[in-house]
Amino acid sequence: MLSCCVRNVLCTLKTPPCIATLALQHSRRHCSTSSCEDLDRVSTLLQLCVDRQYVSPDQTNAELFQRGMSCVYGPLGTELRRNLLEQWWHSVTSSSAQVFGINTLSSSKDAAADGPGQLRIVESDYLKHIIEQQELSKEQLVQEVQALIHRSPSLRTDFLQGALEQFVPALELVNRKLPFGLAESGLCFQPSDGSGCPAEVTQTSLVWFCSPRTSSHWLDHWARQRLKWWRKFARSPSDFSSSDVPVEELEGAASRGVRISYSFPWGQEPLETLWSRGHAELLQTHKGVRSKLQYREGRKSVPHVVSVSGNMDRGVKAFLSNSLQQLMKQDGKQKLLRRKVLKLHPVLAPVKVALDIGRGATMELRQVCEGLLQEFMEAKIPVWPGYLETLPTSMEQLNAKYDEMGVLFTVVISDNTLESGLLQVRSRDTTIRETKHISEIKNFLSRYISAADNI
Amino acid sequence: MLSCCVRNVLCTLKTPPCIATLALQHSRRHCSTSSCEDLDRVSTLLQLCVDRQYVSPDQTNAELFQRGMSCVYGPLGTELRRNLLEQWWHSVTSSSAQVFGINTLSSSKDAAADGPGQLRIVESDYLKHIIEQQELSKEQLVQEVQALIHRSPSLRTDFLQGALEQFVPALELVNRKLPFGLAESGLCFQPSDGSGCPAEVTQTSLVWFCSPRTSSHWLDHWARQRLKWWRKFARSPSDFSSSDVPVEELEGAASRGVRISYSFPWGQEPLETLWSRGHAELLQTHKGVRSKLQYREGRKSVPHVVSVSGNMDRGVKAFLSNSLQQLMKQDGKQKLLRRKVLKLHPVLAPVKVALDIGRGATMELRQVCEGLLQEFMEAKIPVWPGYLETLPTSMEQLNAKYDEMGVLFTVVISDNTLESGLLQVRSRDTTIRETKHISEIKNFLSRYISAADNI
Repeated sequence: MLSCCVRNVLCTLKTPPCIATLALQHSRRHCSTSSCEDLDRVSTLLQLCVDRQYVSPDQTNAELFQRGMSCVYGPLGTELRRNLLEQWWHSVTSSSAQVFGINTLSSSKDAAADGPGQLRIVESDYLKHIIEQQELSKEQLVQEVQALIHRSPSLRTDFLQGALEQFVPALELVNRKLPFGLAESGLCFQPSDGSGCPAEVTQTSLVWFCSPRTSSHWLDHWARQRLKWWRKFARSPSDFSSSDVPVEELEGAASRGVRISYSFPWGQEPLETLWSRGHAELLQTHKGVRSKLQYREGRKSVPHVVSVSGNMDRGVKAFLSNSLQQLMKQDGKQKLLRRKVLKLHPVLAPVKVALDIGRGATMELRQVCEGLLQEFMEAKIPVWPGYLETLPTSMEQLNAKYDEMGVLFTVVISDNTLESGLLQVRSRDTTIRETKHISEIKNFLSRYISAADNI
Repeated sequence: MLSCCVRNVLCTLKTPPCIATLALQHSRRHCSTSSCEDLDRVSTLLQLCVDRQYVSPDQTNAELFQRGMSCVYGPLGTELRRNLLEQWWHSVTSSSAQVFGINTLSSSKDAAADGPGQLRIVESDYLKHIIEQQELSKEQLVQEVQALIHRSPSLRTDFLQGALEQFVPALELVNRKLPFGLAESGLCFQPSDGSGCPAEVTQTSLVWFCSPRTSSHWLDHWARQRLKWWRKFARSPSDFSSSDVPVEELEGAASRGVRISYSFPWGQEPLETLWSRGHAELLQTHKGVRSKLQYREGRKSVPHVVSVSGNMDRGVKAFLSNSLQQLMKQDGKQKLLRRKVLKLHPVLAPVKVALDIGRGATMELRQVCEGLLQEFMEAKIPVWPGYLETLPTSMEQLNAKYDEMGVLFTVVISDNTLESGLLQVRSRDTTIRETKHISEIKNFLSRYISAADNI
């Protein structure tokens, strides 16, 4: 999916100054005007993610991020991904449909799962021990290595198999009544695309079991629900779209598929895929023993499976891309400045409020900040302790930094607060400063966040 | 840590009926009276965990659970582990100390990390391809396999290395001011203990960077904090204890260590370990470049590292064991019955409330339940839709089941609710039934849970 231009952008990431300029120099040689604008957007986004601690600064890491793989996230990226996973979990397990969360193992000893691109966990000592045995003939050596491969556990590439295995105990739990679903999220492993380096992906999975005649209805139901979920947190919802998977791209036993994609500046990438899979895999997992799989009111039929699996690393990238707003504004000296704001949804924003101090007696103002910090933390409002910063910065610079971090509100404590209890609250989205009393700030923030959650 | 008696208990798990009896038959042959009681406790706990969907029913799986490894958790175990991890994350990242969450990769290509017991991800196709090459001599084959081992990524055994690598960008974030910490949780992989099967463990990690002269103070600080945290959720807090690690057991570069353990019926097992590690590993990770590591006010010294790492799968087991209460009570016919209650802390309990229907017009009562279910879910109160059960059970049986699941409250809707809006609420801990109005039940539960959280 990555054009050569985007790769050029990535290459410049190691030399922080003027990354945008460097990227543009590259791109002018390769791209048309409109794609140059897109490219500029890409380089701005990448640089911002690195500067503002969403993604760890390292070229290989930025490349993983770009490919939609799990990468080393900085403090802000880690929180964003946590928030996204939390929202996903809540939306899936608290829907009116019956969904149970489960946790399966990421490696399995089931040799039957052997297929091309299989990743196995090998204890390198064992393998070394085998090949260092001088007395073995070549044939013996080959046999021993084959046996080692065979008994080494394989790493999961998705959550489907684990859910199919857990179908039987779950069916007992619901007194053999369909439909119900099993949800899981976490790391899966993907074989390398020739690079020799397998990749990790943060995946979400809902495996839904229903009667054969309702499976198409449920595929549509979940496709609608999932698209609605993605759009709920978007600044421009139309960038998220769903489409039927063309017949020639259907995988395995699937009879129908729906893909939810995001339109990045460089093209569409899939975020979540839904398949109507029939019952073949479920039967195979349980070795064809139909009696174990039969449900109430189903006579002798075996449930059908609808799978919904998402890539939340790409989800993080989509929401970062979607929320980046670039505005031109004039400064005092009539110079044109570019203001970058990460307008992440209030529920997803990793930091809800930054605490800073203005002019005044530093020691006393800090004490007020400490008190507010505790209050916010107890109310589980993630807060950035800006007042601990030891480098002096202007309010303008501070606002620019917090806008790039996507911080919802900035609270400034000053001499005035000590006298009257009043403080300044600046909103990221309106840039308006309001005066509020220190006693009402926590409730104001809590209400704001929960209101945004319930829309 | 597992005695042979406990292994016998595990063996009986595949034959569900009368597991306690079977376990006792075994144990009478092997154990003294007091250890038999303990064993009885163990078998009761294991059977309850399997019956009530904390742990998936499968002997290998129960063995993983017993060993304190990650296993296949059922819906209730999955939620319990989620709640525990969520509480850990909140307590560590929202402490008054500066702690940032990070996310690193579970595999790394750093060959320097090579040591005994190293696990590597190998694409089995590649390895098969090498050994199937007929034209290679034995020496060439050995060389190619060695090269493959060398370039295969290795799986992490803990989070320390990842945090040490992220020290430099994090130091920039805090303007080179110490102390601060990096937190992470997730899966780590442990080499097999000869069984040939590596194990997964859900670990938590806090890596704390401070000045050399304060490192001992911080070790004590975090040991106190962590013990307090474990005890906060315990029914009998004294089962959680901390002790200094004897000098002869100190690992690597560590100068001091503290271990937090839980006293299981079969003996102590460590839950969390804290080490004062000095600066050797930090320096080594950054190839001895001291200038990158220097902090403000530190002159030319390099920060010291205190590591805090926990096993949350064993944590789940500890809280399950700690919360199981067995009471004898007489039924109506003067028969002695054993009542088992899982008195999990309100914050940890996977299901806070069960919704059931009593006598009355089923259709209408169900509608009331649906409404309450939605209300609870929106308030993020995990609820068990007992009214969907299709098998008739007595209230007695239902209460016994919910007590074993650790459900805090049972709400029963009946004809009376339709007339007057009044419903019955039964508490797990007091077994008392109260009458409440339907309009106040949600707030009652929310207040109860948050009050328990703030103690």
